Amino acid sequence: MTTQATYQRIVLAARPRGAVTPENFRLETVPVPELADGEVLIRNHYLSLDPYMRGRMSKAASYAASQALDETMIGGTVGQVVASRNPLFRVGDHVGGMLGWAEMGVSDGALLRKLDISHIPLSAYLGAVGMPGMAAWYGLNQIMAPAAGETVVVSAASGAVGSVVGQLARLGGCRVVGIAGGPEKCDYVVKELGFDACVDYKAGNLEADLAAATPDGVDAIFENVGGDCLDAALARTNAFARVALCGLIAGYNGAEMPIKNARLLLINRLSLRGFIITEHMEYWQQGLQELAALVADRRITYRETVADGLAAAPQAFMGLLHGHNFGKQLVKLI
Amino acid sequence: MTTQATYQRIVLAARPRGAVTPENFRLETVPVPELADGEVLIRNHYLSLDPYMRGRMSKAASYAASQALDETMIGGTVGQVVASRNPLFRVGDHVGGMLGWAEMGVSDGALLRKLDISHIPLSAYLGAVGMPGMAAWYGLNQIMAPAAGETVVVSAASGAVGSVVGQLARLGGCRVVGIAGGPEKCDYVVKELGFDACVDYKAGNLEADLAAATPDGVDAIFENVGGDCLDAALARTNAFARVALCGLIAGYNGAEMPIKNARLLLINRLSLRGFIITEHMEYWQQGLQELAALVADRRITYRETVADGLAAAPQAFMGLLHGHNFGKQLVKLI
Repeated sequence: MTTQATYQRIVLAARPRGAVTPENFRLETVPVPELADGEVLIRNHYLSLDPYMRGRMSKAASYAASQALDETMIGGTVGQVVASRNPLFRVGDHVGGMLGWAEMGVSDGALLRKLDISHIPLSAYLGAVGMPGMAAWYGLNQIMAPAAGETVVVSAASGAVGSVVGQLARLGGCRVVGIAGGPEKCDYVVKELGFDACVDYKAGNLEADLAAATPDGVDAIFENVGGDCLDAALARTNAFARVALCGLIAGYNGAEMPIKNARLLLINRLSLRGFIITEHMEYWQQGLQELAALVADRRITYRETVADGLAAAPQAFMGLLHGHNFGKQLVKLI
Repeated sequence: MTTQATYQRIVLAARPRGAVTPENFRLETVPVPELADGEVLIRNHYLSLDPYMRGRMSKAASYAASQALDETMIGGTVGQVVASRNPLFRVGDHVGGMLGWAEMGVSDGALLRKLDISHIPLSAYLGAVGMPGMAAWYGLNQIMAPAAGETVVVSAASGAVGSVVGQLARLGGCRVVGIAGGPEKCDYVVKELGFDACVDYKAGNLEADLAAATPDGVDAIFENVGGDCLDAALARTNAFARVALCGLIAGYNGAEMPIKNARLLLINRLSLRGFIITEHMEYWQQGLQELAALVADRRITYRETVADGLAAAPQAFMGLLHGHNFGKQLVKLI
């Protein structure tokens, strides 16, 4: 089905020193490989851009191996099978995988997942019904476990993960307060996602505004940002509050990232747990089923920012790290 | 059995501004009260001095009500019944209670515990077989839950709590590394308590010394101190390490108390939980039984620093907050 002989990919050209720059990436044209027995050739329709990629770009010890230099940047993808020598996958099948920043990719099928697009758009499998949705589901259900009536705070509330956390918590009867950057995002979080309130951290009164939005204190926190956002939320915690630590995007470029008032962890007897959703695969089947049903019923909605074409990926990724995206950041490849 | 008409007590005279000073306390002579029906009069033999008392002296929101001004300072005591109008307690019974910084006290019996001193010295019920021992037992078993062979770090290792944490962890087959102030305490921690190593935080190379003492990283931390001690221990954590946060004595006088590198909580997927042992009474029976057996068998040893007479309590307490005590800080009243 594919007749083209080459495709484009983006490799890591150099590790960032501080902020990510365009020079960290290199666009290459490479030959489409011949398939070995058992392999599948996929044309990627969407590439997912996610904050965790920043960690992989550094050589610093992190929870996962560093992204290798001169290799295709890591990344989740959804697309369609264009050639197959694997009996489990047919040409035309929609599939999700980790084929990276590339127009095409080859898989042996092991980490490839068939996707049903009859009720759910293909791109949602990179967002609310994919890894970001699962991070939300796991942190909320397995760490925060809020009871109905409790107050939940979610940072990066309009983002791919935060938007799902808040909607799931609302469905569970919680009071949900988001933190987001700018009035447009805050409006969206309240009016379209249905959060009870959203605090604009760019307005300059984060601590006071969050206090006003959480009159009964805070019982659970889903943290994507860290820094001032986390400090402000911790300052509002009730006794025995739970903190799911999913991301610390405020410090991904190497800025200092303290928790200023560690006393609160003791005084309020807080529980805090950092997690990486790919280490909890035992929950994915249940979680994705629940998320798929909620997305299909439109009880969970989401927004996407879509960059056009592979060459736009580096700029879109840099924007993501500065919060320029609105909702899930994707790159449309076809 | 008592013929005296008055006794001495120490009340909170003024709340500290920063460091605790002698002016925060006032020694008073008060009349021995008449017992009502059901009440017990106790002569206290030992008063326990503990870091948590610093928190109660402040008006700042804490996990417990503030110590009231002009009232007897809160504190655990062991002593002997000298008069009783309660059928459950007889004159001569040894009892533990919370009668505060006072030579005598009246109890309705509700929070009074009879103590068996046939195999365990009375004072140990304020230490290894009391609240400090339980804090150690709970944090180790219910939060850190280290497996044999894992590395455990304990700050304030020679203290009433830390010494028990380390000995319990050693009995469980862990590699145990203490942090303590000065060569004398470190010597004691290794040679008498049997820790595998102890790092002197006053030697000025905490981070490097702790790294050298934990060649396989750190799997669990029992934190009594905070600040540099906690930062150094966090820097050595392996993936999925657990942190039991029992105290933050480094910041009890109002100093800033940040966790400098919160990134580690995420990168290493740490679990951290602050706890107050008096909120987990459901474990006390089991825990105290185990601790009593270990102390009676001398498989857990401890050291005490004993101040003489009630009037010495304020100075001893100020010393405790600066680490001048060696092991459990007591005040001997009789």
